[in-house]
Amino acid sequence: MNKLKDFPLSKVYQLLEPGPVVLVTTCFQGRNNVMTMSWHMMVEFEPPAVACVVSSNNYTFNALKRSRECVIALPGVELARKVVAVGNCSGRNVDKFPAFRLTAIPAEKVEAPLVVQCFANLECKTLDTRLVNKYNLFLLEVVQAWIDPRRKNPKTIHHHGYGTFVVDGRTITLPSKMR
Amino acid sequence: MNKLKDFPLSKVYQLLEPGPVVLVTTCFQGRNNVMTMSWHMMVEFEPPAVACVVSSNNYTFNALKRSRECVIALPGVELARKVVAVGNCSGRNVDKFPAFRLTAIPAEKVEAPLVVQCFANLECKTLDTRLVNKYNLFLLEVVQAWIDPRRKNPKTIHHHGYGTFVVDGRTITLPSKMR
Repeated sequence: MNKLKDFPLSKVYQLLEPGPVVLVTTCFQGRNNVMTMSWHMMVEFEPPAVACVVSSNNYTFNALKRSRECVIALPGVELARKVVAVGNCSGRNVDKFPAFRLTAIPAEKVEAPLVVQCFANLECKTLDTRLVNKYNLFLLEVVQAWIDPRRKNPKTIHHHGYGTFVVDGRTITLPSKMR
Repeated sequence: MNKLKDFPLSKVYQLLEPGPVVLVTTCFQGRNNVMTMSWHMMVEFEPPAVACVVSSNNYTFNALKRSRECVIALPGVELARKVVAVGNCSGRNVDKFPAFRLTAIPAEKVEAPLVVQCFANLECKTLDTRLVNKYNLFLLEVVQAWIDPRRKNPKTIHHHGYGTFVVDGRTITLPSKMR
């Protein structure tokens, strides 16, 4: 039950670089929350650093800014309806984990919870906040990563605006020197 | 021939938010160059702002830092081999536009060229350089966008490391309040 496996930090970029829609969990003043996010990118391979933009209108903005911790969780396409539902309401009004039947379990190095239904979970701490006030841009370090070993070749979703998502299709491999 | 169409800045996020592999062109000291990039994200809807990471090992780093301009060009899957080839050599040694038979045409608001073979081209100027020295992270503003009107439903590619790419698959649309 809920057996997540330690995932090497050196490979975290392979999860986020392709641009999937993700969930972000926080724990602030003892309260868990989860939001939907598409504006993120890798910044460094190892230790993995990630940049993301969280609108200051979102409940998560203050929770992340104050707690300095979050979890980035990667949902497969089978969670698409929940991902949209999570993104269409605010933690100010809704207790989202029970509302959308998402299961929060304790992380190892941060207070924010892991999302059991996601195929990967990345525990993050704030690394640099210089661009938070002007651009809502947070720099995070991934301090621990988990993967669900039962999930083979999960398909992620990519947002094109207004609830339209492209689902991962076929995979191609070309000889490349690029990491 | 090469008739690109003005694309509304308010919709630029719909092109970059899904996380496609892109090309980045620069013009520095009168010399065009192009590189391959996956580490980028949207930062603001309108005027569109984009963050990206360009390694200081790359020829483009200095070209972008000094010229303060670039073009982000979006290739479809049919360009995958060229995209990998462009990413596997440096502008220090190779004149990439002729070497890979990519066609550079003048942009409107920046010196960096557009790439005719790409289905969209975004002319960018540097917006904030505070995180360049420490993280190689540039903040750009998209000042002009172009789309090739002949290209319907282009399929983009998403890098998972070491030359493995996932190609856009099916599209799903869910009722959503999210922009």
